[in-house]
Amino acid sequence: MIGAAVAKALVARHEVLRASHSKSELTVDITNVDSIKGLLAKVGRVDAIVSTAGQAAFGPLLQLSDADFSLCLTNKLMGQVNLVRHSAEFLNDGGSFILTGGIMSRQPMSGGAAISMVNAALEGFGHAAALELPRGIRINVIAPGWVTETMEAMKMDSSSGTPAAQVAEFYVKVVEGTMTGEVIDAMKHAG
Amino acid sequence: MIGAAVAKALVARHEVLRASHSKSELTVDITNVDSIKGLLAKVGRVDAIVSTAGQAAFGPLLQLSDADFSLCLTNKLMGQVNLVRHSAEFLNDGGSFILTGGIMSRQPMSGGAAISMVNAALEGFGHAAALELPRGIRINVIAPGWVTETMEAMKMDSSSGTPAAQVAEFYVKVVEGTMTGEVIDAMKHAG
Repeated sequence: MIGAAVAKALVARHEVLRASHSKSELTVDITNVDSIKGLLAKVGRVDAIVSTAGQAAFGPLLQLSDADFSLCLTNKLMGQVNLVRHSAEFLNDGGSFILTGGIMSRQPMSGGAAISMVNAALEGFGHAAALELPRGIRINVIAPGWVTETMEAMKMDSSSGTPAAQVAEFYVKVVEGTMTGEVIDAMKHAG
Repeated sequence: MIGAAVAKALVARHEVLRASHSKSELTVDITNVDSIKGLLAKVGRVDAIVSTAGQAAFGPLLQLSDADFSLCLTNKLMGQVNLVRHSAEFLNDGGSFILTGGIMSRQPMSGGAAISMVNAALEGFGHAAALELPRGIRINVIAPGWVTETMEAMKMDSSSGTPAAQVAEFYVKVVEGTMTGEVIDAMKHAG
């Protein structure tokens, strides 16, 4: 939901190359470092890399399986961390990384232990990586709250949701801004 | 450093069974779920499980290897998370888990990206797991700052460190307290 909205918001003022697991011309499997490297070799140097990728598993704490935790770690967490590790050299000076965490890092809910864990991990990584990225490269983590369209797709009451287009505006602001090492709570800033 | 100090502080008022990778009668490899289960089968029901375990890798962000990240995830993070997942049923009603994170989650430093990541992950997990643990079981994460003895062993200036015995007092307070879902910043409370 968010990826398409971010691409749509960015394309008004920027050249956008969109990659996804299977829903775009450029494809990438973020759980596979060789796939990440292959994408970068194809694309070359860019000004910003915005990741809205990442699967994670929801379920009762003591019923989550090893595979559920592994999915969270290899996909949403290390998929995005590996993107940073392997693509920093492809970013132009002063370039920008945005990773996508989520609100459950600070607003935990029953069933969300593995998701809270990886969202918090992404924030911790972002804070620290900002100290070390070379050539003025910035990194920030956006923590979207519940997106209206996601809630609708899940047949939840979407009245408390934020429309994807509105969440996408935060991504544009962070791409075009100067902040680094921040966690942007998209719920707090919305509406 | 911390484990021995915590055991020493607890034993004044509690029966303490100490397990470690190799430095105690009871041994456990926290990266191996079968080893965790074997320890629990041997020990049986307890009132509290205090983990001060966890290896993690320090080094420049773009030089940290896949193996470095993997060590952090499988040892310090999932070692402790798996301890919770598999030992909750062995805790008595109202029992207590303490996991050990670290100050770098909120005070990042150059070279600490993977450590900040796993420390933050442990905090996120703790916050969320507290909502779901059954039978009044509590879980808290202690984030020790720099321990004097560790700094001395690393030949660092230890004047800003907190002695292990003082850090250990926080573990005792949390074992005997009523809080849950908290992150206890041992530096903030020390001195």
